Amino acid sequence: MTRDIVSGGQHIHAPDDLTRLLQDIYEQAMTIKTGKVADYIPALAAVDPEQCALTLATLDGETFTVGDTQTQFSIQSVSKIFGLMLAMERLGDELWDRVKMEPSGQAFNSIVQLEWEKGIPRNPMINAGAILISDVLVSHYSASKNAVLSLVRSLCGNEAVYADHEVHESEKDHGHRNAALAHLMKSFGNIDSDVEELLDHYFWQCALSMSCENLARSFTFLANDGVCPFSKKQIMSKRDSQRINALLSTSGMYDQSGEFAFTVGVPAKSGVGGGIVAVVPDFGVISAWSPRLNEFGNSARGMFMVREVANKLGLSVY
Amino acid sequence: MTRDIVSGGQHIHAPDDLTRLLQDIYEQAMTIKTGKVADYIPALAAVDPEQCALTLATLDGETFTVGDTQTQFSIQSVSKIFGLMLAMERLGDELWDRVKMEPSGQAFNSIVQLEWEKGIPRNPMINAGAILISDVLVSHYSASKNAVLSLVRSLCGNEAVYADHEVHESEKDHGHRNAALAHLMKSFGNIDSDVEELLDHYFWQCALSMSCENLARSFTFLANDGVCPFSKKQIMSKRDSQRINALLSTSGMYDQSGEFAFTVGVPAKSGVGGGIVAVVPDFGVISAWSPRLNEFGNSARGMFMVREVANKLGLSVY
Amino acid sequence: MTRDIVSGGQHIHAPDDLTRLLQDIYEQAMTIKTGKVADYIPALAAVDPEQCALTLATLDGETFTVGDTQTQFSIQSVSKIFGLMLAMERLGDELWDRVKMEPSGQAFNSIVQLEWEKGIPRNPMINAGAILISDVLVSHYSASKNAVLSLVRSLCGNEAVYADHEVHESEKDHGHRNAALAHLMKSFGNIDSDVEELLDHYFWQCALSMSCENLARSFTFLANDGVCPFSKKQIMSKRDSQRINALLSTSGMYDQSGEFAFTVGVPAKSGVGGGIVAVVPDFGVISAWSPRLNEFGNSARGMFMVREVANKLGLSVY
Amino acid sequence: MTRDIVSGGQHIHAPDDLTRLLQDIYEQAMTIKTGKVADYIPALAAVDPEQCALTLATLDGETFTVGDTQTQFSIQSVSKIFGLMLAMERLGDELWDRVKMEPSGQAFNSIVQLEWEKGIPRNPMINAGAILISDVLVSHYSASKNAVLSLVRSLCGNEAVYADHEVHESEKDHGHRNAALAHLMKSFGNIDSDVEELLDHYFWQCALSMSCENLARSFTFLANDGVCPFSKKQIMSKRDSQRINALLSTSGMYDQSGEFAFTVGVPAKSGVGGGIVAVVPDFGVISAWSPRLNEFGNSARGMFMVREVANKLGLSVY
Repeated sequence: MTRDIVSGGQHIHAPDDLTRLLQDIYEQAMTIKTGKVADYIPALAAVDPEQCALTLATLDGETFTVGDTQTQFSIQSVSKIFGLMLAMERLGDELWDRVKMEPSGQAFNSIVQLEWEKGIPRNPMINAGAILISDVLVSHYSASKNAVLSLVRSLCGNEAVYADHEVHESEKDHGHRNAALAHLMKSFGNIDSDVEELLDHYFWQCALSMSCENLARSFTFLANDGVCPFSKKQIMSKRDSQRINALLSTSGMYDQSGEFAFTVGVPAKSGVGGGIVAVVPDFGVISAWSPRLNEFGNSARGMFMVREVANKLGLSVY
Repeated sequence: MTRDIVSGGQHIHAPDDLTRLLQDIYEQAMTIKTGKVADYIPALAAVDPEQCALTLATLDGETFTVGDTQTQFSIQSVSKIFGLMLAMERLGDELWDRVKMEPSGQAFNSIVQLEWEKGIPRNPMINAGAILISDVLVSHYSASKNAVLSLVRSLCGNEAVYADHEVHESEKDHGHRNAALAHLMKSFGNIDSDVEELLDHYFWQCALSMSCENLARSFTFLANDGVCPFSKKQIMSKRDSQRINALLSTSGMYDQSGEFAFTVGVPAKSGVGGGIVAVVPDFGVISAWSPRLNEFGNSARGMFMVREVANKLGLSVY
Repeated sequence: MTRDIVSGGQHIHAPDDLTRLLQDIYEQAMTIKTGKVADYIPALAAVDPEQCALTLATLDGETFTVGDTQTQFSIQSVSKIFGLMLAMERLGDELWDRVKMEPSGQAFNSIVQLEWEKGIPRNPMINAGAILISDVLVSHYSASKNAVLSLVRSLCGNEAVYADHEVHESEKDHGHRNAALAHLMKSFGNIDSDVEELLDHYFWQCALSMSCENLARSFTFLANDGVCPFSKKQIMSKRDSQRINALLSTSGMYDQSGEFAFTVGVPAKSGVGGGIVAVVPDFGVISAWSPRLNEFGNSARGMFMVREVANKLGLSVY
Repeated sequence: MTRDIVSGGQHIHAPDDLTRLLQDIYEQAMTIKTGKVADYIPALAAVDPEQCALTLATLDGETFTVGDTQTQFSIQSVSKIFGLMLAMERLGDELWDRVKMEPSGQAFNSIVQLEWEKGIPRNPMINAGAILISDVLVSHYSASKNAVLSLVRSLCGNEAVYADHEVHESEKDHGHRNAALAHLMKSFGNIDSDVEELLDHYFWQCALSMSCENLARSFTFLANDGVCPFSKKQIMSKRDSQRINALLSTSGMYDQSGEFAFTVGVPAKSGVGGGIVAVVPDFGVISAWSPRLNEFGNSARGMFMVREVANKLGLSVY
């Protein structure tokens, strides 16, 4: 750990201390019964709501876990980061002519704002933005799903990552709002590929299944100026990894992003599957998972656990 | 300086290096002729547009300056931080029932969003939010202007800070949109005091005149976990100073806040007088001033200078 | 009656038939207990909700009445027609540069639409439009209230018409949304006079008290190409009276105007005091009053009575 | 003619007078060169912009024509009336649970309003409403296109009416905004059929080609309480024909409907092909066509001609 961790006036260095801290936080989280499992598609609604996992992966290669950290779940919007990475790599700064980098101040699936902004999504973390990113991937990669899969598997070091077929199909059947967003962007000339094809990629990507541990490991490079601390490979430039962190800071937690910055203070991304990934620059990644969501679509227990870890360890970047 | 500064692969330690860096950046900035001086009130429109200043105040007490750093100018929205500090101190967490902490995704003076949100401003950095803060100050301080003045003067160590009478009067004459925001909030029951009285405070506060150096010094406590590095006084709790930095990160730079996070990566606040203050946690404060504004209302030269300093010194928090 | 009235296949000519018809409709209306008295100001909330009146004034000078037709009540938005008449007279077609004549598709007090339309109200029947009309009156009449009072009194032939002082004051105290509309228009440069002064006129005008019979008589000229059938005086040109009827047809009944055209089919205006005036070209005026309002702000019993009279007598203009 | 026509103080009875009046108006119209041919699809953009036609069909069976009144053109949104007629017949009053009858106060293709109204279109004359009507037709008629074609052909007495294949295909290729509207409504559960299938019907219906004379004749039943004056057949009930006229009065002329009521005063519908149909109850139908459109999407010459005929003959219903 390159940062100096202080909790309650005491330096925490020993792995045992961290394990105990995570365990305590996990146990408190388990008493939280509020929130509602995402039910817009049957495949998500059927998930056991009591599942809960917390992982901390530090840059020195240690991983601390509590709960169902190996259980795979639907990562949903967390996948937007993977898509963005590939689109940034392929288009470079041109990408930012087609999607902005501003917080939206609106629900993640707002069509009103997309109309006002004439088909230019406010950022790549809202649905419209991620659909646009899917258009870029489908247009610029011969096999866009494989490209995502290779990236994800190499980042988390797990070749068994796949997209859940049932969730993928279910998303397609219930994805009319996302189809509306795609068609509206196309009517503004901001979509190149066939709408059906890009939505297929988008829904597939949302249906990726990963474990809490997979997620933590995948994003450690964002805490390490773009370098994977395990493989030592430069995943992306320092500048680009800071840019992604900046986006996550202003726009990663749906319409609770401001509150998250205010109360936690680190870049993070959540998904309606109940997963949350929080990047702590120069320190590591906290990931959490539990299916019941608060009113903003963020995991109720996940929010609690990430906040507690960050606060107890003094991890705010501000 | 508690951070290790690296520029172009070289460590910058020596004051001379920093002075030279600022000088270079300032000279490049002077070639920027784009943008337009704020002209919604005559008092601002009359300002000499070529003026330009850049200051860097570090936590170890050093201050580096180039240009018109002692010239006083209208700090406008930068004053929203002072108001917020006093309101947080007086109301505590109750404040956040009346104003949210989310980025707005809208113009700073949007009335549409205020209507949607039923009179609850999205954050204290947009006009509606700062007007609400003025209501808190007018309602909870017997002499709200004096309270602000005492705070500002003690923070910057300059007893000569005052509000410009002409700007104050001019704002009142041209402040009908702000009056509309105040009345709309009052119609939703979110304003306690008399609208005219609170607007008088608000316009007065916007009319505060400070120099670039004053500003840099005023906000060093935000880079130092709430402690003024000069007086060693705890201005506010570490938690509250991190919260203000979080707000500035997501909402401080008008509708360019996301881009600022993306390209600069530090908490900052701008005003239509052309001033910008950027807080670099554990390092110091960069302040810049030049009257010509870009399309978002941020100083064109100021944006350039702050970004260059932050990038050259590697100051992004992400 | 210049129109041929047919009810249920039978011609209705005799006054007795009409009296009986109105009586039947009134009795059915009295069984309606739904709706809620306007309660945004105490003076309106205190009105006896069971009161009910129905009047039919025909162009041949006959007046048929049932219920509390002589009781004075707050005419509220019905007064917008009087204001409009005076503004049209004073400004001529210039008026339509400052207010449009399009249906709003929004709540009567929408501030969102006013922002989109850059301070130009969609029509003179929504609050923003009527406030703009008040600005015209205050700016162009030396004594705007007297001008309205003279007009109203001469139209209804009752010198005892006055504005209710308590309602007037109460509206001022609770009129912050209207103040927001006025300030927003002023910020767009579409208001000439002092906001407080024009709002005083506006609230005063809304507080006018008239009886159901007063109202019916006042607007017979609109059914008679601009000529008062009693005094034979040309109140306004045929063209202008048709224009006002057109406005009432598309925009007179708040956000129920379309449904009213669809189910009743005549120009009409309602007020939150529970009054409704319906103009039947070449026939006469139906007025109704009962304080309980439906969800759109229209009198529940009043809507029923006007619709029944129009349908039974086949009065739709379409 | 059952109405008494007065023009300039003189009664116009003789067919010759009417012919001369139409000729004069047509010649004035030909001097109008403003406006722009619809160019969102190539098939429409290619139309000769100078073409111009004016028809008056009276209830006593006479038809007066000037210009290119036999030339077929794309009727576009005028076709919404045909679709509505069939949907009203099939669903009865249930239809109005799925589409409202209120003016929209927005552009005809607004997606913002559809979002606010949770997928319930404001009326059947805006695109969202007509798309919903297409869903009803596709769901409730075994061969929805044939049903429309039979209706249209029988109303205008021309078996040669068809949909233009090129326009139909072109609309489909450029119809992404309409697809967005359809998917958004489906996401709210207000669309039953397959989106692609209903859009195919919708675009086909918009592509119907008819002549100015065809149109005039088709809609005479709306001026005659639902009875076709030629065949004496009751096309729809008097009540339903009045309802359609009411809808056309508040919502038939895009975002110029209010102005049209104000300056013309009769129910009417326009299309971006340049056609306008105006219904004069108890008198007949005025139809006009010329491709160049004003800023609202209404034919510039068509608006002039319809207004002049209505004003000269005193046809306002108000």
